[in-house]
Amino acid sequence: MTSELLLAPSAACCATPADGAIDRDGAERVARVFKALGDPTRVRLLSLIAAAGGGEACICDLTDPVGLSQPTVSHHMKQLVEAGLATREQRGRWAYFRAVPHALEHAVATLAR
Amino acid sequence: MTSELLLAPSAACCATPADGAIDRDGAERVARVFKALGDPTRVRLLSLIAAAGGGEACICDLTDPVGLSQPTVSHHMKQLVEAGLATREQRGRWAYFRAVPHALEHAVATLAR
Repeated sequence: MTSELLLAPSAACCATPADGAIDRDGAERVARVFKALGDPTRVRLLSLIAAAGGGEACICDLTDPVGLSQPTVSHHMKQLVEAGLATREQRGRWAYFRAVPHALEHAVATLAR
Repeated sequence: MTSELLLAPSAACCATPADGAIDRDGAERVARVFKALGDPTRVRLLSLIAAAGGGEACICDLTDPVGLSQPTVSHHMKQLVEAGLATREQRGRWAYFRAVPHALEHAVATLAR
């Protein structure tokens, strides 16, 4: 907001780069997806789910590989679900998670279109 | 594009749920890339650079589109450079930035292998 005051106009510079760039709303959406994966534990959790047999993992099988308690893993998984990177299904006592196909690739494509 | 990663023979064992999932070091590296893009301003900056003529943008042309001061934009750009998503070249008074080709796609492929 203060850029006009801080920036002296320069004759030496340049082409305007705004054409074709992502808009503010798109950037907000995409950043939410990337933010969810800006944590190594959540990266591992999503990778574990994607690599699980049948593409589905019970939360009971996710705690040991990341060495964290079930409430902590649940908290991380909630962020992945809210970012649209995973889905959650409660079956009896346990929650089961699946990676959403192409959700991450879609965010990348939106950024790089 | 990711076929070499997808076709790589699996190295060692195992029957754990972690089989085929990203390891801790890989998760740390990938999370650093995603964390840098977990902010809508940095998403827009990288998109602006990628969309700029010649694939290069002067910092003097990045401040207005995001409505932020040059020091603030410099701070954001530093994080993109440190994450390996952009390169920086100082030419005279101005810093010029380029997006690193396929850096983001490589992080996605590492996660999704």
